[in-house]
Amino acid sequence: MFDTCVMLNAAKLVLLFASLAFAISGLRPGLAANAVPQETPQYTSDGQLKFPEQYRTWVFLSAGMDMSYAGDAQTGNMHMFENVFVNAAAYESFQKTGTWPDKTTLVTEFRDAQGKGSINKHGRFQTDLMGYDVHVKDAKRFPGKWGFFGFNPGSKSSALIPATAACYTCHADHAAVDTTFVQFYPTLLPIAKRKGTLSSAYKKEN
Amino acid sequence: MFDTCVMLNAAKLVLLFASLAFAISGLRPGLAANAVPQETPQYTSDGQLKFPEQYRTWVFLSAGMDMSYAGDAQTGNMHMFENVFVNAAAYESFQKTGTWPDKTTLVTEFRDAQGKGSINKHGRFQTDLMGYDVHVKDAKRFPGKWGFFGFNPGSKSSALIPATAACYTCHADHAAVDTTFVQFYPTLLPIAKRKGTLSSAYKKEN
Repeated sequence: MFDTCVMLNAAKLVLLFASLAFAISGLRPGLAANAVPQETPQYTSDGQLKFPEQYRTWVFLSAGMDMSYAGDAQTGNMHMFENVFVNAAAYESFQKTGTWPDKTTLVTEFRDAQGKGSINKHGRFQTDLMGYDVHVKDAKRFPGKWGFFGFNPGSKSSALIPATAACYTCHADHAAVDTTFVQFYPTLLPIAKRKGTLSSAYKKEN
Repeated sequence: MFDTCVMLNAAKLVLLFASLAFAISGLRPGLAANAVPQETPQYTSDGQLKFPEQYRTWVFLSAGMDMSYAGDAQTGNMHMFENVFVNAAAYESFQKTGTWPDKTTLVTEFRDAQGKGSINKHGRFQTDLMGYDVHVKDAKRFPGKWGFFGFNPGSKSSALIPATAACYTCHADHAAVDTTFVQFYPTLLPIAKRKGTLSSAYKKEN
């Protein structure tokens, strides 16, 4: 239910992503003990993307709250954070080039935004997991180089969201770098500016 | 200006942290190329904590927005995110033990929370860096095992916040695990519950 396109259609939080992992990369030494590193996208025999279980130790790009493309979005009592992670090799590559290499995987995690709780009396903090969007760059596999996938909590694999879905055109038309919303990742945007990798669509809008 | 205690006194976003790094740990392979890993706390000759420059590639614990201990907090037009990171070795240790090893370093990064911008018309996303709080566990150095430090953007080192400051007592009295606010880190709280490492102060309050 929390895939990008559904959310787009529902005028809900969106802002997806993409990234890719060099084949040789691995987790940090301290984290490799109990898991096979999964830095490059993995697929089932029928072409579904396997959920990148290690994403919580990937590099954090940014978090937003209640973001929406719709000016009249009514969230009522429902509030949500979105945290964006990218595999480490793709992050490192972006530092050097200002754009994403093939096999980049960006994971957006959605969590409930709780208000009062423990000593917190104002603002919001993160609690229950609500779902994921995953944006994968795999040029040989996807006609537009990138594919979108939605996962519910606990889902092990997910089918590609069709290339006709709104997420693809929205990302193509508005995202700052290579169909990814780098304008919302404050440590990456200055790099893209320096490297001259901002999309013409983004430059026109800004 | 953005150290924990100042923010506490100002009834502003707070919720700090601590963590520590094993001596042997390093950055992820992909990130080690252009930087000396700084996973364990480093100090100047006069005892100031050096800013942990690599923190953005550490493990993300959670983000909050406009969090405050004060029920009547008035933030007006000023909104802020706080992102919390911990060094990888401490994170790995927490997975096994439910608590923090010596040399844990927790970094809270404060960023401006912007509303409208690019295609975003609702909710908020992160922009300018505003400052940091750093919480370090170094049992031989600090009488209470943990020390708090505040950094402005670009600061290279910072003096210890005196142990008489309110942050120390607040963390001791309300934090879920070893004086750190694990109740606000949704991937760590279940581990602490399983491992039985929740503080008696926290259990009494919840």
